[in-house]
Amino acid sequence: MRKVKAAVITKPGEIKIQEFPYPSVKESDMLVKMEMSGICGTDKHTYKGELRQYAGTAAEEDIPLPIIPGHEDVGVVAEIGKQAKKNLEFYGRELKEGDRVVICPDIICGRCWYCRHIAAYPWCENIKTYGVTISCKTPPHLFGGWAEYMYVTSDTFVFKVPPEIPPRIAVLTEPLVVTYHFDKAKEFYSLGGEGFGTGDTVLIQGTGPLGLCHIIKARIMGAGQIIAIDKSEYRLKLARDFGADITINVEKTTEKERIEKVKALTDARGVDLVVECVGIPEVVREGIEMLRKGGMYFEVGNYVETGTVSLSPHRHMLAKSIRLIGMTNHPYTGYGPTLKLIERYLHTIPFERIVTHQYKIEDAEDAILKSMQAESMKVVIVP
Amino acid sequence: MRKVKAAVITKPGEIKIQEFPYPSVKESDMLVKMEMSGICGTDKHTYKGELRQYAGTAAEEDIPLPIIPGHEDVGVVAEIGKQAKKNLEFYGRELKEGDRVVICPDIICGRCWYCRHIAAYPWCENIKTYGVTISCKTPPHLFGGWAEYMYVTSDTFVFKVPPEIPPRIAVLTEPLVVTYHFDKAKEFYSLGGEGFGTGDTVLIQGTGPLGLCHIIKARIMGAGQIIAIDKSEYRLKLARDFGADITINVEKTTEKERIEKVKALTDARGVDLVVECVGIPEVVREGIEMLRKGGMYFEVGNYVETGTVSLSPHRHMLAKSIRLIGMTNHPYTGYGPTLKLIERYLHTIPFERIVTHQYKIEDAEDAILKSMQAESMKVVIVP
Amino acid sequence: MRKVKAAVITKPGEIKIQEFPYPSVKESDMLVKMEMSGICGTDKHTYKGELRQYAGTAAEEDIPLPIIPGHEDVGVVAEIGKQAKKNLEFYGRELKEGDRVVICPDIICGRCWYCRHIAAYPWCENIKTYGVTISCKTPPHLFGGWAEYMYVTSDTFVFKVPPEIPPRIAVLTEPLVVTYHFDKAKEFYSLGGEGFGTGDTVLIQGTGPLGLCHIIKARIMGAGQIIAIDKSEYRLKLARDFGADITINVEKTTEKERIEKVKALTDARGVDLVVECVGIPEVVREGIEMLRKGGMYFEVGNYVETGTVSLSPHRHMLAKSIRLIGMTNHPYTGYGPTLKLIERYLHTIPFERIVTHQYKIEDAEDAILKSMQAESMKVVIVP
Amino acid sequence: MRKVKAAVITKPGEIKIQEFPYPSVKESDMLVKMEMSGICGTDKHTYKGELRQYAGTAAEEDIPLPIIPGHEDVGVVAEIGKQAKKNLEFYGRELKEGDRVVICPDIICGRCWYCRHIAAYPWCENIKTYGVTISCKTPPHLFGGWAEYMYVTSDTFVFKVPPEIPPRIAVLTEPLVVTYHFDKAKEFYSLGGEGFGTGDTVLIQGTGPLGLCHIIKARIMGAGQIIAIDKSEYRLKLARDFGADITINVEKTTEKERIEKVKALTDARGVDLVVECVGIPEVVREGIEMLRKGGMYFEVGNYVETGTVSLSPHRHMLAKSIRLIGMTNHPYTGYGPTLKLIERYLHTIPFERIVTHQYKIEDAEDAILKSMQAESMKVVIVP
Repeated sequence: MRKVKAAVITKPGEIKIQEFPYPSVKESDMLVKMEMSGICGTDKHTYKGELRQYAGTAAEEDIPLPIIPGHEDVGVVAEIGKQAKKNLEFYGRELKEGDRVVICPDIICGRCWYCRHIAAYPWCENIKTYGVTISCKTPPHLFGGWAEYMYVTSDTFVFKVPPEIPPRIAVLTEPLVVTYHFDKAKEFYSLGGEGFGTGDTVLIQGTGPLGLCHIIKARIMGAGQIIAIDKSEYRLKLARDFGADITINVEKTTEKERIEKVKALTDARGVDLVVECVGIPEVVREGIEMLRKGGMYFEVGNYVETGTVSLSPHRHMLAKSIRLIGMTNHPYTGYGPTLKLIERYLHTIPFERIVTHQYKIEDAEDAILKSMQAESMKVVIVP
Repeated sequence: MRKVKAAVITKPGEIKIQEFPYPSVKESDMLVKMEMSGICGTDKHTYKGELRQYAGTAAEEDIPLPIIPGHEDVGVVAEIGKQAKKNLEFYGRELKEGDRVVICPDIICGRCWYCRHIAAYPWCENIKTYGVTISCKTPPHLFGGWAEYMYVTSDTFVFKVPPEIPPRIAVLTEPLVVTYHFDKAKEFYSLGGEGFGTGDTVLIQGTGPLGLCHIIKARIMGAGQIIAIDKSEYRLKLARDFGADITINVEKTTEKERIEKVKALTDARGVDLVVECVGIPEVVREGIEMLRKGGMYFEVGNYVETGTVSLSPHRHMLAKSIRLIGMTNHPYTGYGPTLKLIERYLHTIPFERIVTHQYKIEDAEDAILKSMQAESMKVVIVP
Repeated sequence: MRKVKAAVITKPGEIKIQEFPYPSVKESDMLVKMEMSGICGTDKHTYKGELRQYAGTAAEEDIPLPIIPGHEDVGVVAEIGKQAKKNLEFYGRELKEGDRVVICPDIICGRCWYCRHIAAYPWCENIKTYGVTISCKTPPHLFGGWAEYMYVTSDTFVFKVPPEIPPRIAVLTEPLVVTYHFDKAKEFYSLGGEGFGTGDTVLIQGTGPLGLCHIIKARIMGAGQIIAIDKSEYRLKLARDFGADITINVEKTTEKERIEKVKALTDARGVDLVVECVGIPEVVREGIEMLRKGGMYFEVGNYVETGTVSLSPHRHMLAKSIRLIGMTNHPYTGYGPTLKLIERYLHTIPFERIVTHQYKIEDAEDAILKSMQAESMKVVIVP
Repeated sequence: MRKVKAAVITKPGEIKIQEFPYPSVKESDMLVKMEMSGICGTDKHTYKGELRQYAGTAAEEDIPLPIIPGHEDVGVVAEIGKQAKKNLEFYGRELKEGDRVVICPDIICGRCWYCRHIAAYPWCENIKTYGVTISCKTPPHLFGGWAEYMYVTSDTFVFKVPPEIPPRIAVLTEPLVVTYHFDKAKEFYSLGGEGFGTGDTVLIQGTGPLGLCHIIKARIMGAGQIIAIDKSEYRLKLARDFGADITINVEKTTEKERIEKVKALTDARGVDLVVECVGIPEVVREGIEMLRKGGMYFEVGNYVETGTVSLSPHRHMLAKSIRLIGMTNHPYTGYGPTLKLIERYLHTIPFERIVTHQYKIEDAEDAILKSMQAESMKVVIVP
């Protein structure tokens, strides 16, 4: 009997390579031969045993190990059911064996209050997420991207990839969709004063893959000055290459110096928008201090329970006239537009430089360790 | 020589009745014979020596005592300069002796970056506020409402009061303008999901005068269920009388019980909007816990530096998909519409019940002590 | 064999009473015993042979007669399939025989670009509408409300009616949902200047049932002055009773007089919002002339192809800084909140006065003729 | 006595070169030595005698000839009063002789209802516009840019030009500010569906200077496919060079073919946004036909009374769910950000190619005739 190899987080700190039965594919479903699956902060959290992750789980539950990680997924259709051919692609385009697809990891119920009332964002009360919250205990097991094959059910949002986009770039679709925060910021826009205006100053806290994607998107959308902060010179170099005007190294500055520098760069006012992509509670306060009155703060980084930060309701909220927006999840409606944007900028933005390291399934543990080092950008698993 | 009597906060905890020279009025200015001046939380803070108040001051300065308090002001024109007659009223209506006016306390420079770019809200870098930040040391001294007369300079926003509105109700204009948060929430509106939708559930933390004004406004704007929380049964009674459907007494419940009760009232989701009108840091966390995913939190109460609150960036921001809006100041463009609203609801909303206690200038200290007691709603000074 | 009686528009100008076989109900579907079904402008258009109705049809198709009209429907569950019991209600509430329900007439495909990207509004490319675009030729035939029973398929949005709301009021749910234009206007809101601000002036052109519902909703949402225009004194009387401050009779005024009157009522500026509920092209120009610069115009009335109006791009668009919003359809997410609003205002708004005439199925033609007369408000069919 | 030379439109179709006395400069004002002044559609209209121009005039008045045209102005400070040095620059930066400035042509009263309530846009009831509505009859006469000197009064919005921006590019500031429509579109944004989303399809009707500026801005802001329509191959070539993906020549196609082509380019849906920069009423209907349901139409081109267009309220408004936005004027708050944007893109966008023809004051009539020809882009007067 044919077997499928996968990397499995069996318990905190342990990744095992396991084999699962090659599944039979239902009429409504499909099987994808994986080409590439990215490592995201969420995977690191799961590996480290930080299992309280609301974003992709119901409010009060932990991640149900064992899990095949991998939710930034690109592959080609290996087998597909008759109904799935017609129904599975998000925009109703027919799918056939060999088509390259990216898979939105979030599956929503479509029937809870949030699904009924909230557009685009999967705030579903019954959300499941491939590679994050669906255990591989239950058949057909293959519910994550760090595997030779991934089993995709009929309630999944699947997107055809334009032929010009190679897997190495298509694998970035998911984190690029996360940057729809900036489009979200437009909903709060008022001419000249709030939200994301053309030419507005943007500060990115943390220039790992997610921060880098935000720099790219901010630049595409007509940002003015982009300031990036990180502790790694390796990452800050990439930040500058992708559009940051100014970078500040956390290791070489005090918090006070950083705040002063940002004020000095912005006529003493502070920046218009901050995006938090670090995932450490304390940086929230630092970032708010760097914001101008009426500025917008996007909390994107703390995807798992990481502890608390002390804020003054007077100083950091009221007197700052802050607009603080928590961004859990990414909008499934962003996949189509993002793939088009990638296509448009394929030859002017060096997306291919973002994937800095590739590992085989067998080396998944090395991969996750590498992804935790500052001397890496996006690390991927290539089955 | 004629004298003008005023109550003066001379130092923390001390109010003295002083006399100032009756001023001569410039061509561009006017003198208002005060009819009524409300006591606001800010006045209590100043009295208690909590002098770090950004809302009405430049960022890093304390309130410059001595001060004649009083920024919720209504009176009649006593003397007015020739130019002021034509220019001083906000909408260009001519002013003459005897006209009743309310005075927006905030004076903006009109030339800083915020004045140039931000509409309606006085986020001015050089803001001055009658009754709050303008010392009575400098002539003509009379820069607050707890006095027989108030001196109004040419850069002030002044509004004629419709003749049907008596002083006892006109004195509420300022706190009612503060409730423009709810109109602000519309800027964030998206159909069915965010901002302030018709029928949305609103929670008011703290039902002092400001909280009560929010209840009134929420009801006018088509709110659904309104829940109010306070420690005073006296105030909660008034909250119910003015439109709250459910009230919760802090003294009779634990935080856990309150959160559970709010969840129980909202299909286990939490409310759509919370307005914080208490002014204690800890209640921010409680209020956020009561919010649904994607709900809106207005921080309105902590007008002075009151300390900090511990928040989890994951639990209280990201996973909550919070929209937390700090609201310093109130929009001067809200005075005109608010006076019209008062006129419209004059006979259906019992505004006159909001002013529960009136004191003479000489009894200003008694007044401020009364306003700190739970058994009062709006306390005013009547010269 | 048991028969079901229904009124059928067989060809323009002809309504026949026909009998259809009592259907067998699928596991996923249900059969509703009709209590009341309203007559809407759309029904009159279909009766008059104005069959080009984009709102509820694909762009270039006519209404496929024969049709059982009736898309403002309330009834009780007569039979319901096992799956439908669990799945059919919009919010997932269990349904059983005897439950009162309202039925959103629009059925969407969920898979076209519009369904994928547009929230709440059924701009579906494959939309079908009960009582409007689904012919009764095909079994089980009963796809409109002017019948003893209505067959409801699994892809329908069905809403449980709170027990306090009688059929005579529940039948108004659909037109009240149409008024979500006003909530839509909030998306365009900017403080003090655009969209629907608290206290804004609203003009309703046409005070038939739809116009009346807009008056009710505007009042609930905190509108300022409401002006209503119609040719029928009977209807204008109702408009005043439900919240209009000023009414203007078209029969007693010239267009020039009406425009001048509206200007006179609004400090010579014009109103903030206009809602067109007449359905005659020319009134669009008149309404725009009554709007202030930057005002909002909602085109709601011309649900069928009614001809053209001449507009000056300079005078009526550019120089007016108009925000003209076409509103086809109503949002299915508005049903839940609307039913809650009705419940809240059940004892303060005399909803029951809106239904002025009731007819039996057999008298459907009389009913539709009555609904075309000015001396009626909402006319309904009561099986 | 020293004289100042200027080109004057004395009556329709007549431009005379006249001399005016060199003015004495008040303490609050300044005199600018003109470097360059662009020719705009408005100037052509005035020259042709189309004098009903609401945008820069009170509603029912004609342009008061004689006029020195020129409202796209850049020059250097020649003389400046003591107060003006401190007060005249928009952001409070000190001005001195020799500083390069651009001058927002619109002067607002600051006191009418629109000035009080509307942010950024000069919808002032008492608006005056240099080069458009201020006659040169009254001293100091020099109220337009086609002159050696221009007299700038204290109520003008003046902006310092960064030293890297040469006059040839600075002269484009005004038309680039007009493109703030796209930022305006963000106010209407809802994720995935309305307003200007990243990657959205944009259609520009008319690729004269204003259309070209819109192409540039759309590209800067992350537009997807940009389609441009014009009758001039010369202009369409420039449109492509500046970012249009597809151009359609009106002379080589029928309206039906153009509509079909645009539909074919957009999955049969139509474009997301259209900007009308032609100034002919009929193109409004064509543009609306090219829009998708729920798309946004910006009417920018018909700055003067040009006649009417026939629209079907059903087909072009309601069933289209159109958002039609009239854009008179440009926001004075856009000058600062636009100058920063120009600076940022100075070396990647070939702005200097937009000015294709330069004329002396003496040749102003030739200049205006040239600007009416398709074989020109921005034509400027260089004193």
